Amino acid sequence: MSAPTDPELRNALAALVGEANLYADPADKARYETGARYGNGKAALIVRPASTAEVAAVVRHCVATATPLIAQGANTGLVAASTPDESGTQVVLSLERLRSELVIDRANRTATVGAGVTLQELNDKLAEHGLCFPIDLGANPSIGGMIATNTGGARLIRYGDVRHNLLGVEVVLADPPGQVLDLMSGLRKNNTGYDLKQLFVGVGGAGGVITRAVVQVHPLPRQTATALIVPTTQQATLDLLIELESEFGDFLTAYEGMSRSTVQSVIDHVPGVANPFAPEPIPDYCLLVELAATSSREVLGVDLQGALNDFLERQFDVLVSNAVLDGGPDLWKIRHSISESIRHQGKLIAFDIAVPRSSMIAFRETAQRMLDQGFPWLRLFDFGHWADGGTHFNIVWPHDATPAYDADTVERLRVALYDLVVRDFGGSFSAEHGVGPYNARFYHRYASAESQALAGRVQRALDPARALGQVDFGPV
Amino acid sequence: MSAPTDPELRNALAALVGEANLYADPADKARYETGARYGNGKAALIVRPASTAEVAAVVRHCVATATPLIAQGANTGLVAASTPDESGTQVVLSLERLRSELVIDRANRTATVGAGVTLQELNDKLAEHGLCFPIDLGANPSIGGMIATNTGGARLIRYGDVRHNLLGVEVVLADPPGQVLDLMSGLRKNNTGYDLKQLFVGVGGAGGVITRAVVQVHPLPRQTATALIVPTTQQATLDLLIELESEFGDFLTAYEGMSRSTVQSVIDHVPGVANPFAPEPIPDYCLLVELAATSSREVLGVDLQGALNDFLERQFDVLVSNAVLDGGPDLWKIRHSISESIRHQGKLIAFDIAVPRSSMIAFRETAQRMLDQGFPWLRLFDFGHWADGGTHFNIVWPHDATPAYDADTVERLRVALYDLVVRDFGGSFSAEHGVGPYNARFYHRYASAESQALAGRVQRALDPARALGQVDFGPV
Repeated sequence: MSAPTDPELRNALAALVGEANLYADPADKARYETGARYGNGKAALIVRPASTAEVAAVVRHCVATATPLIAQGANTGLVAASTPDESGTQVVLSLERLRSELVIDRANRTATVGAGVTLQELNDKLAEHGLCFPIDLGANPSIGGMIATNTGGARLIRYGDVRHNLLGVEVVLADPPGQVLDLMSGLRKNNTGYDLKQLFVGVGGAGGVITRAVVQVHPLPRQTATALIVPTTQQATLDLLIELESEFGDFLTAYEGMSRSTVQSVIDHVPGVANPFAPEPIPDYCLLVELAATSSREVLGVDLQGALNDFLERQFDVLVSNAVLDGGPDLWKIRHSISESIRHQGKLIAFDIAVPRSSMIAFRETAQRMLDQGFPWLRLFDFGHWADGGTHFNIVWPHDATPAYDADTVERLRVALYDLVVRDFGGSFSAEHGVGPYNARFYHRYASAESQALAGRVQRALDPARALGQVDFGPV
Repeated sequence: MSAPTDPELRNALAALVGEANLYADPADKARYETGARYGNGKAALIVRPASTAEVAAVVRHCVATATPLIAQGANTGLVAASTPDESGTQVVLSLERLRSELVIDRANRTATVGAGVTLQELNDKLAEHGLCFPIDLGANPSIGGMIATNTGGARLIRYGDVRHNLLGVEVVLADPPGQVLDLMSGLRKNNTGYDLKQLFVGVGGAGGVITRAVVQVHPLPRQTATALIVPTTQQATLDLLIELESEFGDFLTAYEGMSRSTVQSVIDHVPGVANPFAPEPIPDYCLLVELAATSSREVLGVDLQGALNDFLERQFDVLVSNAVLDGGPDLWKIRHSISESIRHQGKLIAFDIAVPRSSMIAFRETAQRMLDQGFPWLRLFDFGHWADGGTHFNIVWPHDATPAYDADTVERLRVALYDLVVRDFGGSFSAEHGVGPYNARFYHRYASAESQALAGRVQRALDPARALGQVDFGPV
């Protein structure tokens, strides 16, 4: 049960954003209260401002009345950073109405957008100009949420993450409460002291609410080439990446590893997907390679797929033992269906991790051994962005397994696996999903004492009252 | 005259780094006391630690004794951030001995380096592996200095600046004094709260001394194509950039504009350089275009120069009125000789500015008009990185001009031009050189009150005693 909402708060917020944009009814509130994967609470109210000025007014009022405020974009995050807790006292500040602004500057190759504009909306508009915002994700987040999470995705090796493409932000600060910080320069070169926008990237809403942004956009590729490759050995997985970067470094947009279990799972559960290697069996491991070129076939004088095919032929029996060429959308369908398909296998225990590329082979081996020895009833469905070191190390607890699912064992598994990732392999316990209430305890376990001390000092400097953001990055 | 140096300080520092690495003699100190362009003072001592531990010990001692400390890399910066003032009381902390570490991880495509390693040393070693650190500059800075300045350069549009290629740093903190902050992960994906390394990028040594770094490196290009292009109109300069990014976005590494005066100056003063357009006269404005491909001609099936030539032929009389094709090193020699050649013309008044690309044409016109009207005896030698919006808007006061050179007029010019850049065109008064004692007054003039307040709070949080860094980024 949620606590009754203070009528004064209700009336004050309604006066700021309009009665129609304040939701107090459980049915209206529901979709703002539950996260895409984690986070399931109760909000006192949902407040939906339509402008930076309204956001500022809401922040001012909530800070003045010590009302906890949770910023929310499209609510597609995976660490519970944009949903309320179960207290029923928190107000969700939805930014979804900050979407009237979407201006493309063709000559500057930038887009200026409201924080509530979604990735899909942005890309639809950009496509009309032959441009794209190339952060590739399995969701449709808002731009504000993408900045707060610093999303990465499958094509990071070519285009970088959100941080790399962010030229400007506007932020409503926690302190002074409601002050608007305008950093909306669309400059690529501007070395004038602290790059203050970095303080609001990837911190899940700490210290301020992002209301607008200027992002760098890119020309849409005119041709792509794909192949599903079976490496000759595990070492060949890395060697092939090095070769591809050396030979096709300008074009490599994705190098996605998939274990046999993930491909099998897709074939078993997704209609219309067959073994792409038939009549050969599904290999132990395969790699989806994508090249993309801005230049058309006419300008380059050759097609990229042909060049990739020739390269793979030269690597046959050296680094490559089999390959499916030019599968395009069909191959990506396998890759994009993994997460959905493995839900049929049992209860998903997801790990969004990264290690240095040079450690990926050793990490996979060690982690598999740890699972075999300590948790033999669990099944691994891992797939990874080898080019950036990120891995979705998904583990499934089968419905019919013995022992039956229990949360304590899952927690023991989490700690054991993250310990391996961070302490033994120098990796990250959250490669691209960020830190939220769901995984804040791991931040405090793995960030060094020096890092936490410094982060805490920065966070307090920005937001002494800790009014915005759900995670305390200082020592606890 | 410098003040006499406290013998206790001298002895204490000598005990930390060894007598041989403490310079007190004027002849030994001289090369550390004068900057590459600005900054000419007197140091109490030069201290040259050889390890992170020695740097930490020096920082601890200097903070404890309230001794001002100036970190210095290769001392190639242009804003006086690494040289002492005239008081003779500051100690220069040279990082030049932190160069024993230079480790290349081929599979991770990274290099781990000591802060004193120079760009040239790094690139020489990388070249053996077919790799490069592609920040292109007219100097040979240390890696630590590059991070402290966030250097950009001529190829930013392809590779980004230092910030974009920095995967990890080690920093000796000002507070707690001498504490080592180890952020040396070589990860490309690591979204775990504040990206603390950003706090030490581009701030000229504020808050900490960078002692080591992990940088992302890139495959060396296997082929390049160049052309020196005359656009049909001023607008064509931007339109051609858009077309080139659209057709050759994967390859465009440089798009460097040069005004007639700069090309003429190089021809007049640099032996062996002739008018590349002869028998045509030097055009009003020309553009050095460079494409670079990791893929060899064999892999791509066509040479890049041929593709560029074909493109330019299609643009002839549309966006291009003349072009010199495939000039390679000769064309770059013109571009790289500009700064040197214009020193023959008179006293250089350099401006390192940026505006949004979409404003570059209007800015040039307006600035030229302002010069013609207010300072008609001055001569403009501007050249610009059009692809990233940066311009070296160099103005020369001819030796024989009337009126004669005077500093007050130069200051009036600086303020007038920077006002135009920042206030009228939303640009930057320091595109790539950073902020140091030389231009700190312009930071305080142009950074918004909100930005300065926030920057000051962050700086105080990191370094309450203001022990490291010469610029106070808070309000003054």
